[in-house]
Amino acid sequence: MPLLSPEAPPRHVLAIDIGGTKLAVGIVSSRGEIADSARTPTHVEFGPDVVLSRIVGLSRDLLRRHPVAVDMIGVGCGGPLDTGRGLVKNPPNLPGWNDYPLVQHLQDALGLRVALDNDANAAALAEFHFGAGRGTRHMVYFTISTGIGGGLILNGDLYRGKFGNAGEIGHVQVEYDGEPCNCGGRGCLEHYASGTGIARRARKLAERYPDSLLNTLAEHSGEITAHTVKAALEANDSATVDFWAETIEMLAAGVASVVHAFDPERVVIGGGISKFGDLLFEPLRSRVKARTMPPLMEGVDIVPASCADDVGVLGAAAVALGGQTMVVS
Amino acid sequence: MPLLSPEAPPRHVLAIDIGGTKLAVGIVSSRGEIADSARTPTHVEFGPDVVLSRIVGLSRDLLRRHPVAVDMIGVGCGGPLDTGRGLVKNPPNLPGWNDYPLVQHLQDALGLRVALDNDANAAALAEFHFGAGRGTRHMVYFTISTGIGGGLILNGDLYRGKFGNAGEIGHVQVEYDGEPCNCGGRGCLEHYASGTGIARRARKLAERYPDSLLNTLAEHSGEITAHTVKAALEANDSATVDFWAETIEMLAAGVASVVHAFDPERVVIGGGISKFGDLLFEPLRSRVKARTMPPLMEGVDIVPASCADDVGVLGAAAVALGGQTMVVS
Repeated sequence: MPLLSPEAPPRHVLAIDIGGTKLAVGIVSSRGEIADSARTPTHVEFGPDVVLSRIVGLSRDLLRRHPVAVDMIGVGCGGPLDTGRGLVKNPPNLPGWNDYPLVQHLQDALGLRVALDNDANAAALAEFHFGAGRGTRHMVYFTISTGIGGGLILNGDLYRGKFGNAGEIGHVQVEYDGEPCNCGGRGCLEHYASGTGIARRARKLAERYPDSLLNTLAEHSGEITAHTVKAALEANDSATVDFWAETIEMLAAGVASVVHAFDPERVVIGGGISKFGDLLFEPLRSRVKARTMPPLMEGVDIVPASCADDVGVLGAAAVALGGQTMVVS
Repeated sequence: MPLLSPEAPPRHVLAIDIGGTKLAVGIVSSRGEIADSARTPTHVEFGPDVVLSRIVGLSRDLLRRHPVAVDMIGVGCGGPLDTGRGLVKNPPNLPGWNDYPLVQHLQDALGLRVALDNDANAAALAEFHFGAGRGTRHMVYFTISTGIGGGLILNGDLYRGKFGNAGEIGHVQVEYDGEPCNCGGRGCLEHYASGTGIARRARKLAERYPDSLLNTLAEHSGEITAHTVKAALEANDSATVDFWAETIEMLAAGVASVVHAFDPERVVIGGGISKFGDLLFEPLRSRVKARTMPPLMEGVDIVPASCADDVGVLGAAAVALGGQTMVVS
């Protein structure tokens, strides 16, 4: 479902992406063109009012430089949120934002309607409208970075569930008697296969195999991250190859579970771990296919996200343009 | 979403439930009242044409006895189906139904429009419109019997996915390195916690604990089924109590995964295993709650299905009345 018919002149919206480390603001057309944008560190340590005033300043600069008709503001922000009331509720990456009335403040300062959604839903909308999910009606988006989040496009619309929390597919539980996860669950995909989970498991592996290249790389750099795993994997370190096969199996169990539940046309995977590229996508496609009923697997693609570093701004724009979100008018 | 406003006079439909062991036909109002119904063994051994002619005979008898205006036929049938073309495609419980054009044959014989859906989707619609899911907009239905199937009501409608196969939530994979399942996957919930899975695992348990009450009951009756497990559990057999706790953990991982994905208001559980009653529902509620993020768990009920033995006929009726299904006009 295109946001506007191809013939119609494009609308423009102001897109605001609020992350724990950086802010991005852009003017984006309904065709997904970024007319202009600005980025700056968030400096969460100064609290929400200071961050808000910097967002407002950046926004006014952009609006002054680009006097196109901007009719709305879209915001993507780390959750949890109360989208019904336009509040930011204690996100782990935005300390001090306790029921912060972001929508009301932005509307008062900038005089435009504001639509708000969480960053994973915003990214799913970005991929659906402007990226790797274009042309589908049923798309599941995974973001695999520090954690694992998701967003669901069902029947051409973002699906939110009862309280707007649908799509927590990082907490699909791939080991019923597994390790405890921060969420309260056990054996969650995020606990094992997020960037954090991969690094934690890799640290144990390096201890167990002190002669492995993984451990050598770790001793050299003083730490193990997902990057260390990627480097050891590219050098064909045998302990790391086995470790990665197990990680792929965990991810494949999670993706196959989601495919059985949703029968999507496409699974789009973004986030830092998607930069493993073919090391991730080739074995994952093969293992998901092996683990999924044939009629469900037919014609489902597992593809990398394509909005890249613009996903935050494009996602915030898509929240305004296409999300069925809270709108203060 | 009620099928009709309470004031409107009810519509009536002919409901046909085709199972591997029995057929049921009924005249059902849009308020879920069964005006009349008939049941008979399916006798699959005679093949689809004979089964069809018996369905048509039963239907004509009912329509003659109850001359209300019946405007449509709804059919629930074991899948796989091709609902787009009205075909039954080789269901395991209906041998010989190879691309059988059920919709066309029924329409030709009875002269009414026909809507067809699989039995799990039909049961989900029955619970949503007439049973334990009434009043919700987001409901997940599990049926735990020989296998584990499901149906998804999202935003007040049955969700079908790309090819109509959404809701295969028996194949959520709760053990990434688990045993192979018939579906091709590994560690599927159905493999462990369906009636068949429970009986298979219980047979191993009885071998391991020859002094257990479970084994004594098994030797007495000559077999182990889910009923044997229930009897041993009610007598507090310690091996069976531990076995059941593990089964609950598997089910809780599956239900928690589905709750994280869909953020439903209610999870409705039907099928033979739901007759374990409080032995199932009390520990399952507690373990799903423990395994689920608080905002997702708030206000989600896990309840038994309530359509009981009428679920087949009510489901077939709901397919005609409320399903977004294939309609040959």
